[in-house]
Amino acid sequence: MYKIANLRQLKDLIQFLPEPDEETEALARIRQGDLTKPPGSLGRLEELAVWLCAWQSRERPQLEKIQALVFAGNHGVTAQGVSAYPAEVTAQMVNNFKQGGAAINQLCKTVGAKLEVIALELDTPTADFTIEPALDESAFLKCFNAGLSAVDSNSDCLILGEMGIGNTTVAAAVCFGLFGGVPADWVGRGTGVDDAGLKLKADVLQQGHNRHKDVLKNPLEVLRCLGGRELVAIAGAVLAARQARIPVMLDGYISTAAAAPLEVLMAGGLDHCVVGHRSSEPGHDRLLQRLNKQPLLDLNMRLGEGSGAAVAALVLKAAVGVHNGMATFEQAGVSEKV
Amino acid sequence: MYKIANLRQLKDLIQFLPEPDEETEALARIRQGDLTKPPGSLGRLEELAVWLCAWQSRERPQLEKIQALVFAGNHGVTAQGVSAYPAEVTAQMVNNFKQGGAAINQLCKTVGAKLEVIALELDTPTADFTIEPALDESAFLKCFNAGLSAVDSNSDCLILGEMGIGNTTVAAAVCFGLFGGVPADWVGRGTGVDDAGLKLKADVLQQGHNRHKDVLKNPLEVLRCLGGRELVAIAGAVLAARQARIPVMLDGYISTAAAAPLEVLMAGGLDHCVVGHRSSEPGHDRLLQRLNKQPLLDLNMRLGEGSGAAVAALVLKAAVGVHNGMATFEQAGVSEKV
Repeated sequence: MYKIANLRQLKDLIQFLPEPDEETEALARIRQGDLTKPPGSLGRLEELAVWLCAWQSRERPQLEKIQALVFAGNHGVTAQGVSAYPAEVTAQMVNNFKQGGAAINQLCKTVGAKLEVIALELDTPTADFTIEPALDESAFLKCFNAGLSAVDSNSDCLILGEMGIGNTTVAAAVCFGLFGGVPADWVGRGTGVDDAGLKLKADVLQQGHNRHKDVLKNPLEVLRCLGGRELVAIAGAVLAARQARIPVMLDGYISTAAAAPLEVLMAGGLDHCVVGHRSSEPGHDRLLQRLNKQPLLDLNMRLGEGSGAAVAALVLKAAVGVHNGMATFEQAGVSEKV
Repeated sequence: MYKIANLRQLKDLIQFLPEPDEETEALARIRQGDLTKPPGSLGRLEELAVWLCAWQSRERPQLEKIQALVFAGNHGVTAQGVSAYPAEVTAQMVNNFKQGGAAINQLCKTVGAKLEVIALELDTPTADFTIEPALDESAFLKCFNAGLSAVDSNSDCLILGEMGIGNTTVAAAVCFGLFGGVPADWVGRGTGVDDAGLKLKADVLQQGHNRHKDVLKNPLEVLRCLGGRELVAIAGAVLAARQARIPVMLDGYISTAAAAPLEVLMAGGLDHCVVGHRSSEPGHDRLLQRLNKQPLLDLNMRLGEGSGAAVAALVLKAAVGVHNGMATFEQAGVSEKV
């Protein structure tokens, strides 16, 4: 995979994105109409199957090779006391991922995905965004390229997740930077903060916003100044997947926020992505509205790690099963609507 | 499995239902709190795991043996023109199930369930409930016992579904009989009826209601007079599963309506059941409210066959995976909340 040399090059690249294969998409829709069920009666399973066909350019989509990438980073803004957990938990959880003990390990087993965990300089947190940009341009590009190069271009589907103590605050800051409103629109209790913590998160968002207000018109600058390493890497992975026309299953609030700059820069930039689940972080709903995305599941989950995306990938498997395996009305000798 | 000899015996049986194992449930909750994730962050996956533990009486639940039962029946009320498909489609689809070509076949493969299809006297539709009771007591008990005896008491989980042209009207009639309101509360477009068809369905409901108004206080009589063979068999299977403490995944509107009399007769009678998905039939929402059930998925599905339940069983698998496989904070050396 190529590397991005500067923000200008990246912005240009996002202007020319591969599109879904319309011919295969049309054939997939015809097949869905021929299968032994009332048209549309499988709802989103039908849409997902057609979406997979279009991006994979396969009349029979496949999910043999599912790659799951979990990026981890640490955040200077945790110095403001925005998280209920100590920052060392990020590294401890990365270790847990590597030992196979976390939720995402089990969920990847269930769905048959190959998990890779990429820790991004955990010993060097980003700068506190209330004081200076979280990342300088060089560090931003390093993380973006780490995301780009992590994607296996032979995958049938990519699951994206993250780990980073403090990163619901970071995701909220990115959303506030991209879409405006007021801080309270975007903050939630993350992993266990109380009412005072919630107010603190909103204050921290406003401080970061004021500090970086001159660059907020540029979505990539929002991600650089208010984001974090794992968010930037996710954005890189989403772009790499688009280049390789790999369908992506995003996880919850943080993964969606990380990918959002691509859609803001280029309408349709996330058309190859489905959002796996509706996070119980309240900002996620608002973000999904802005991106015009309907999450697949709503299971009151808020763990991150790609856990919601992995569960949602099970639904993709169901969609592929019915699309590829069902008989047509003609094959089965079943009468159509009178 | 024993057989039910009369309605009185059945009603008595429903007064003494096995309960979940509270001790195992408590241990499962403790384990969920010890696993390497913020408490509650896996939302419904946690609840589902605890629910499976409680009903299976296992500290580590299992889903090795999933049984899927699809019951099929035909309905005299189709003479009123309530369905857009001809009644012979029921038998054609049963044939399709047996050939492996339907949606439920593929979904059972995906989740690893063993599918059994039980056609209930398709050549003898029930009576038209606008004129007389759909089933006499003997026919009712035969279907109920067919459902009872179909359940494999060694299953880890039971998926229930149905096939029957006209049975959204029948399900709506049962709901109207059990819960009242007005016919329009309970009818929807089923498998492709238009505005006129929708009005017709409501009229048919009111006629049935008037015809059988003297017996509507007895939920089993509602099921007998306004139901159908596949609905009665589902009710039998739900009861057999309760007796064997097998967790049940119900499908959509029709399966939930079929099971509803048990909850009306005995509060908590469906505690061993989860509703797999929210059907796009509008009556389902109202029914779920009455039963205080929150469906697991909302994928705009309305096929029946147990299809929504089979997709939902994938989420159960995910729940079992995390409950059984995750490391505890202590095992993984991860710090808890400060």
